[in-house]
Amino acid sequence: MNDTFRPISKGAEEWLGHSVSVLDHGFIYLVDYMGDDLAIEEAARVSYGPGNKRVADSTGLIRYLMRHSHTSPFEMVELKFHVKMPIFVARQWVRHRTASMNEISGRYSVLPKEFYIPEDNDIALQSETNNQGRGANASCTGKRTAKKYFVTDPESAFKHYDRLVNDLDIAKELGRIILPLSTYTEFYWKIDLHNLMHFLHLRMDSHAQFEIREYADIIAGIVEDGWPMAYSAFKDYVVKSERFSAEELRVLGVLMDDGSVEDITGLAAIIAEKSDLSSREISEFVDKVKRIIQ
Amino acid sequence: MNDTFRPISKGAEEWLGHSVSVLDHGFIYLVDYMGDDLAIEEAARVSYGPGNKRVADSTGLIRYLMRHSHTSPFEMVELKFHVKMPIFVARQWVRHRTASMNEISGRYSVLPKEFYIPEDNDIALQSETNNQGRGANASCTGKRTAKKYFVTDPESAFKHYDRLVNDLDIAKELGRIILPLSTYTEFYWKIDLHNLMHFLHLRMDSHAQFEIREYADIIAGIVEDGWPMAYSAFKDYVVKSERFSAEELRVLGVLMDDGSVEDITGLAAIIAEKSDLSSREISEFVDKVKRIIQ
Amino acid sequence: MNDTFRPISKGAEEWLGHSVSVLDHGFIYLVDYMGDDLAIEEAARVSYGPGNKRVADSTGLIRYLMRHSHTSPFEMVELKFHVKMPIFVARQWVRHRTASMNEISGRYSVLPKEFYIPEDNDIALQSETNNQGRGANASCTGKRTAKKYFVTDPESAFKHYDRLVNDLDIAKELGRIILPLSTYTEFYWKIDLHNLMHFLHLRMDSHAQFEIREYADIIAGIVEDGWPMAYSAFKDYVVKSERFSAEELRVLGVLMDDGSVEDITGLAAIIAEKSDLSSREISEFVDKVKRIIQ
Amino acid sequence: MNDTFRPISKGAEEWLGHSVSVLDHGFIYLVDYMGDDLAIEEAARVSYGPGNKRVADSTGLIRYLMRHSHTSPFEMVELKFHVKMPIFVARQWVRHRTASMNEISGRYSVLPKEFYIPEDNDIALQSETNNQGRGANASCTGKRTAKKYFVTDPESAFKHYDRLVNDLDIAKELGRIILPLSTYTEFYWKIDLHNLMHFLHLRMDSHAQFEIREYADIIAGIVEDGWPMAYSAFKDYVVKSERFSAEELRVLGVLMDDGSVEDITGLAAIIAEKSDLSSREISEFVDKVKRIIQ
Repeated sequence: MNDTFRPISKGAEEWLGHSVSVLDHGFIYLVDYMGDDLAIEEAARVSYGPGNKRVADSTGLIRYLMRHSHTSPFEMVELKFHVKMPIFVARQWVRHRTASMNEISGRYSVLPKEFYIPEDNDIALQSETNNQGRGANASCTGKRTAKKYFVTDPESAFKHYDRLVNDLDIAKELGRIILPLSTYTEFYWKIDLHNLMHFLHLRMDSHAQFEIREYADIIAGIVEDGWPMAYSAFKDYVVKSERFSAEELRVLGVLMDDGSVEDITGLAAIIAEKSDLSSREISEFVDKVKRIIQ
Repeated sequence: MNDTFRPISKGAEEWLGHSVSVLDHGFIYLVDYMGDDLAIEEAARVSYGPGNKRVADSTGLIRYLMRHSHTSPFEMVELKFHVKMPIFVARQWVRHRTASMNEISGRYSVLPKEFYIPEDNDIALQSETNNQGRGANASCTGKRTAKKYFVTDPESAFKHYDRLVNDLDIAKELGRIILPLSTYTEFYWKIDLHNLMHFLHLRMDSHAQFEIREYADIIAGIVEDGWPMAYSAFKDYVVKSERFSAEELRVLGVLMDDGSVEDITGLAAIIAEKSDLSSREISEFVDKVKRIIQ
Repeated sequence: MNDTFRPISKGAEEWLGHSVSVLDHGFIYLVDYMGDDLAIEEAARVSYGPGNKRVADSTGLIRYLMRHSHTSPFEMVELKFHVKMPIFVARQWVRHRTASMNEISGRYSVLPKEFYIPEDNDIALQSETNNQGRGANASCTGKRTAKKYFVTDPESAFKHYDRLVNDLDIAKELGRIILPLSTYTEFYWKIDLHNLMHFLHLRMDSHAQFEIREYADIIAGIVEDGWPMAYSAFKDYVVKSERFSAEELRVLGVLMDDGSVEDITGLAAIIAEKSDLSSREISEFVDKVKRIIQ
Repeated sequence: MNDTFRPISKGAEEWLGHSVSVLDHGFIYLVDYMGDDLAIEEAARVSYGPGNKRVADSTGLIRYLMRHSHTSPFEMVELKFHVKMPIFVARQWVRHRTASMNEISGRYSVLPKEFYIPEDNDIALQSETNNQGRGANASCTGKRTAKKYFVTDPESAFKHYDRLVNDLDIAKELGRIILPLSTYTEFYWKIDLHNLMHFLHLRMDSHAQFEIREYADIIAGIVEDGWPMAYSAFKDYVVKSERFSAEELRVLGVLMDDGSVEDITGLAAIIAEKSDLSSREISEFVDKVKRIIQ
């Protein structure tokens, strides 16, 4: 325990000092953070100047900032994590460029024999609707075969890797090239809250790969505890919001006007008639309308 | 005083909670920070992995990182400032894009009547050698006239601004356009240590404008106190270092070989003879050689 | 006219080689560009791989990317401008950090005597609803007084600046500090299409300051001509779209269910009754509902 | 062939439209570019203003910009590549964050059976001095064993991958996790010249992994052809330059003063005596001094 003159976030403090397991060998560890909900407010108030406190309370102000995409005050909070994950997850992770990272190097170090083996329940067929994701459960044969390869191929690769780098002293940077994408890697990762929420928005989404969602969900829990006002506004105005295009707004007006909006089952056909939207656009539109007319 | 599980920097803690005056109305205030010297080391050690502690101690590792421009571990430390400065300084400041900022808005707020008046000693003639800077001291007439304008023009502009926005209720975003570049502005500014040191390198330089150097020098003092290992390496390997081009290395070898390097006064002529360097390049080269042969 | 193997955008070519006037002394000049609408599609198709052309045509694909905020293919197009604008506009402009810039330096050059004088019609009172903008037309006295100051204060400042830097040889970096924020500056500005559209979204908005909107509108015209598919998708899915929060979607459902949505005048009161939204949130919500029920 | 009003780089045009092979299945393909050497100069001249042409010619100006790390004009040139490389190379590549990228997705597409097999000559032992790189040639056994694993492990993994995703219809995002790091991937990559030269500086370096150097060297050739002035300045002032720290400059002066600099073999011992430099620092220092005293 240290004394500090800095502001603290009680919720974030509780996540410090211990890691949370993810998948079979991964973890998330909150290493450090800077600023709490009030730090967001404080930075925003600088913009408005001393004489402008029309938006009186912190929650209201933070909701206002989120609603209007005034993102810079959210950049004033920073989080630093130590994370461990399979390489195929790491490759999705690093697409988020506005972050700092120090990753373990397979050129310097012999990588430990740790690789991801999906649980039976997570082995699924290619989705028929979402051409980048998983759909129905695999057959028993499918699951059994996949599981076998997920275990034996990496086992064999790590045995050969060990022989190359340990017995034959082949350069580590070369030996590792036979290791599978399921191999675990780890890194320090520092990011500001605005960019972290953007990461969460994309990676908590149902279209994100299951394995990275497992990480995103835990990080979301940390943000919710440490920055409850920001997280609540984020959930309401971003995660669970829907954007309607100009054309969708127009068509929605027509549908409401003539009452056809209430016939959910016939909606797609009616929209096709009343707009130039493509069938894919219509299907996404109908999903959004359903969120209104439950 | 708060309790935290986060690492603290004792040196940085002492700068929290009070501001330092700069110029006539400006200030620098360290609002928050994240990480200490060890946080830099810790992130770097992740890259090298558990089995590679060849560089044994923290100072040695941090010097190594700086020497080889391994910049990402320095990004793991973050500082947040509240700063107040004249607008012409702020316009140089914001060129450093890898930072977060929330500035007071002259569209929302009536700007307080505060503008920068240079001290007599800082009023100088255009430099004859450095075509972007100050040179010899101005004459008494020069100083007196400049001082008069520095005071009376902003006085008058602020009087008119006050009349426009307060008496006539003209939109603040319009009224402010007559205010001078010497008007003070303020903002929150958050930046990581790597990018802050790059800022310091450019803005502590003798070619930077005097007024922004005043700010950079104070921030350098904060960094030196809070992150002494990083700052010391930065000073040695960046601020006070010299880079010699391929051609300069070659010519330096020739000069040393035939002993002509010792004749500082004749150096430029000799270099002109033994290389294709332009006169400007030669003059910069000679300055660097003088750093060796004092 | 040059021969090139690069793709060209016919619409963009027509903007090259001549500048467009903005405000009284400003301009926008398209200096160079890279890529056309197909360059966006081409980059996106790399992601999907050779065997995945489910989204058949270019327009459909570009609309899909925009709708789902798949922003990286839009980064594949680049535009470079030469722009000239008053300093108070430039200060808003540079907040967009993901761009490259080379601005004229008042430390090197004597700045020409050019400053922005708003037209009578653009001189307005502080808005009562939008506390960062303009509202009703100013009175004749207001306009006359403002106009006088907009002209005479800069006139005087430039006369004094001329005396300082030309007659008395005071350093240019010092002399300029009395110049007003209405002084014109100019710079080269390079930005990718994704970030440019983000700029346009914020700066074409009715809450942006009139003067920067004048620039944004012209740039929007260039984008529309040069990248018509991207621009059309941007207009539909971003500029003219509306985002509804989770709570707004719920309340909208309730309003539609009991038919109260049709009573526009009573809507705010009904929403206040059926939700915990603040009065400001309600007012923004009602504006969005009006877009549906015209 | 297209007509354009844009400036062209003759050297760059010649690289358009055909790809260059790298390693066994990789390639580099220049897709598009924006700006030539003069575009760098032109942007820089905006900063200096119309009345400041003290640096008369383009070469001199570009050398000046490079020497003084005035990097923003180099950002005004942009290059776009299509590149194909093994995943372990791609993972080093994406560390360069200031770039735009669209990579083939193994979630959408079945990845083609292509993986990197190092040539015999490139299979080497772990270096004893550079703990991240390759050293002496491997023994025949070493080479043979390594080669066997480099071929058979990926062969087996791809066979299993094919069975999973093609025969059993297991989700592609899952099936791919057994593929090795030697698997080829490809992406579009857009970057400005300043950031590209930074990439080249790090990746052409003798400490970079051989495989990424193969790519960097080819890109360097493209830059040299397309932007000869910038490349030449980059080579002289960055790639082949040496930076001497404050302490190294001091010690170098001492060595020159007493003539001990000429005894290369005894240099390390003398430096150890006359400074506090660590043995690693001394060894790097001696290497730099050797560049002067050949």
